[in-house]
Amino acid sequence: MRRKDMLGLRDVSAEEIVEILDTAARFRSVSERRIKKVPTLRGRTVVTAFFEDSTRTRLSFDLAAKRLSADTLGFSASSSSTKKGETLMDTARNLDAMKPDAIIIRHAHAGAPHMLAQAFPWTVLNAGDGINEHPSQALLDMLTMRDHLGELAGRTVAIVGDVYHSRVARSNIYGLTRMGARVVVAGPGTMCRQDMAHLGVEVRHRVDDVLGDADVVMMLRIQRERLAPGMMASAREYSRFYGLDLDKLRRARPEVLVMHPGPINRGVELSPEVADGDRSVILEQVTNGVAVRMALLYLLLGGEPLPAGADDAAA
Amino acid sequence: MRRKDMLGLRDVSAEEIVEILDTAARFRSVSERRIKKVPTLRGRTVVTAFFEDSTRTRLSFDLAAKRLSADTLGFSASSSSTKKGETLMDTARNLDAMKPDAIIIRHAHAGAPHMLAQAFPWTVLNAGDGINEHPSQALLDMLTMRDHLGELAGRTVAIVGDVYHSRVARSNIYGLTRMGARVVVAGPGTMCRQDMAHLGVEVRHRVDDVLGDADVVMMLRIQRERLAPGMMASAREYSRFYGLDLDKLRRARPEVLVMHPGPINRGVELSPEVADGDRSVILEQVTNGVAVRMALLYLLLGGEPLPAGADDAAA
Amino acid sequence: MRRKDMLGLRDVSAEEIVEILDTAARFRSVSERRIKKVPTLRGRTVVTAFFEDSTRTRLSFDLAAKRLSADTLGFSASSSSTKKGETLMDTARNLDAMKPDAIIIRHAHAGAPHMLAQAFPWTVLNAGDGINEHPSQALLDMLTMRDHLGELAGRTVAIVGDVYHSRVARSNIYGLTRMGARVVVAGPGTMCRQDMAHLGVEVRHRVDDVLGDADVVMMLRIQRERLAPGMMASAREYSRFYGLDLDKLRRARPEVLVMHPGPINRGVELSPEVADGDRSVILEQVTNGVAVRMALLYLLLGGEPLPAGADDAAA
Repeated sequence: MRRKDMLGLRDVSAEEIVEILDTAARFRSVSERRIKKVPTLRGRTVVTAFFEDSTRTRLSFDLAAKRLSADTLGFSASSSSTKKGETLMDTARNLDAMKPDAIIIRHAHAGAPHMLAQAFPWTVLNAGDGINEHPSQALLDMLTMRDHLGELAGRTVAIVGDVYHSRVARSNIYGLTRMGARVVVAGPGTMCRQDMAHLGVEVRHRVDDVLGDADVVMMLRIQRERLAPGMMASAREYSRFYGLDLDKLRRARPEVLVMHPGPINRGVELSPEVADGDRSVILEQVTNGVAVRMALLYLLLGGEPLPAGADDAAA
Repeated sequence: MRRKDMLGLRDVSAEEIVEILDTAARFRSVSERRIKKVPTLRGRTVVTAFFEDSTRTRLSFDLAAKRLSADTLGFSASSSSTKKGETLMDTARNLDAMKPDAIIIRHAHAGAPHMLAQAFPWTVLNAGDGINEHPSQALLDMLTMRDHLGELAGRTVAIVGDVYHSRVARSNIYGLTRMGARVVVAGPGTMCRQDMAHLGVEVRHRVDDVLGDADVVMMLRIQRERLAPGMMASAREYSRFYGLDLDKLRRARPEVLVMHPGPINRGVELSPEVADGDRSVILEQVTNGVAVRMALLYLLLGGEPLPAGADDAAA
Repeated sequence: MRRKDMLGLRDVSAEEIVEILDTAARFRSVSERRIKKVPTLRGRTVVTAFFEDSTRTRLSFDLAAKRLSADTLGFSASSSSTKKGETLMDTARNLDAMKPDAIIIRHAHAGAPHMLAQAFPWTVLNAGDGINEHPSQALLDMLTMRDHLGELAGRTVAIVGDVYHSRVARSNIYGLTRMGARVVVAGPGTMCRQDMAHLGVEVRHRVDDVLGDADVVMMLRIQRERLAPGMMASAREYSRFYGLDLDKLRRARPEVLVMHPGPINRGVELSPEVADGDRSVILEQVTNGVAVRMALLYLLLGGEPLPAGADDAAA
């Protein structure tokens, strides 16, 4: 791969996506070993800069970097000098002067990672920027789908919920359509507007409208603060029209995959029976997350080539 | 040792306790070296999941894991997705999907570590669950006692303070009685009720009542919020009846050991002269804490066998 | 170097300063490599104990320790047991019992690091104590000056702003005068009092008064809370008399160096054009910060000698 950064899937080619997923599939075995480590990024510096709180994504990236033997360090919003009024660019200039190899950034402003990527020589990995993109999440979603479906081309993926405000949805839409999949979206009117069709997706209304022909149903996390009166009456009403329970799931194809980026609001977008049921691949998504992030760091940083078989043997 | 987890000392045999203490004694030398590291857990992933704040216990476990060459990562209550309403089980399922080797958990709910240990294949180390247990603390306490007293059988250990709400006390009671020691407890009525006798301990009242025959006096930290009017008039009154100062210490055996799990409320449960005096082994407890936690991680994770003499030689 | 600690530059000799700067210059190349790591402090334990928030200084020290292969762990004010009322000395006694090699401490109380250094056998690195000293910052400042000016002796360094409350200024004054440089200071009356002359500096008033003969102008960060009415009317007025913009800079020597310890209040003490202009060496300061901290850790901890050329070759 000849790119310096992973900012989003909007401009990533199908060939690149395949390369990332293939590499991730090879790295998966590292995490299954007794010694979960390969020396490929030894001595490299990876900084996690999370201006928005996160546990799982930060841990997943941190673990990916450590399993490649990189040195990791980081800071989070609550302890950052941004509290002292420093601009993002000044924070980044300071990080730059410490000679990092990669910065993994989550930021409330769409485009923040792109700004850094243009200004600095190091690799930028977008771990979520506003409502724009969250590419590593979409890549781990696609790896999980590919494991079960084989080719993505020609498959139908339904994304249900607050599609408009979801960086997970947006990255999946870019990636899946690039791979030749058909994407249908559904959700409350303000969260899933007709004009999303320009993204190349088909816009429907309720979860019932997508279940019939979907190979995958990806349920998005609903931000509870968006469920204020006027937007949606209540979590209960949301659940009735846009949530998935066993009863509704019976109308889907028997082999449908149920996905969710987590953390789940149990009983709202997913009933516990579905979240933990046999169609759910939610935890495979998490496992694939570490592998995809290892692949991204390895490919973007140009890790030392793995000796033949190194991905299967102890490091 | 054939167990996967260390959840508490309630069901741990005397043989297992001896194995842990013997292993800890061997590991003690690692922390005395110039190169404080052995490679036995290289490439293993140890996650510290502290849902309650802690500095010393977290640092002690983190250091123990690093001195065994494990990779450590973690999160604390303040940055966790539990803030987003995720259940402990969902958090744990996600950690599980990242393929950790061990999780060190502190949680406000008694039984939380046991729930995870039953549900998941990785090692769970209880670093404190509600008012239930804090086994690594009791093991480091017992190692410290053994260093000074030799055999624990037949010795008398007094535990003074809020015994009822103390996970440190509870783990010590289980462990010490298992090893054949005699345990007497004392404290204010609501904190040290007569019905604690069913734990196999002798219940007394004031610190004065335990000093005469104790080989060890373990003073518990009093939670200042429990000293509200109606419970105890004030810290001053608490100190008068349940605190230890030089004057009271004169009535104890000259070779008595004074212990405290820290952090100390100086002037409340211990006068500074006693905390820093020649009977205090409080800082030996801390040193032994790192060694006991190295032993637990090593034994539970089945670390690579140390070459003969490796615990005494540079790694 | 034969000292155990780096507490401040007040009692550090010119020979020691030269040794630190020379060592830092050698270490600079490590951060430029693909594998940014030398094994010299492998297996050593370095603890960052930041009782005041910090991002850049903490990251810089953490990175320095990791690039020397030390194990790092730490805690910050917000998660510390000091919240439970523990004294600094008790916290330190506990750290001591865990057998660290070095503690890097930032604390609101002047003298806190000195107290620890006297009481304990491990190396103490002062990362800022109240308004007293911040020696690693002054050393990185001097390395940056030396890169551009060669010898420091005979050079004129102006320090502008709240000199009185600045630990950065104080450490620079000690270090620079020791090296034979001339130091002039300027700032509002209450922040830059005439009696500072006893430190061996010349006291002036406004930024205009120092620009004519300065080889270096070091602009200090103004704490916005100090700009309350009665002290200074406003940030705007502060900027007018004590800030530096392109217009004022024209009156300085053409080769003058503009420095700032960061984070910058853009538009207050420095206009953006000056902060980012061709006289600014602010980011070189940050790069030198990692190298100076590597040098300090290496010299104070007696790192394994680097093989000939090791500072230029891959580790």
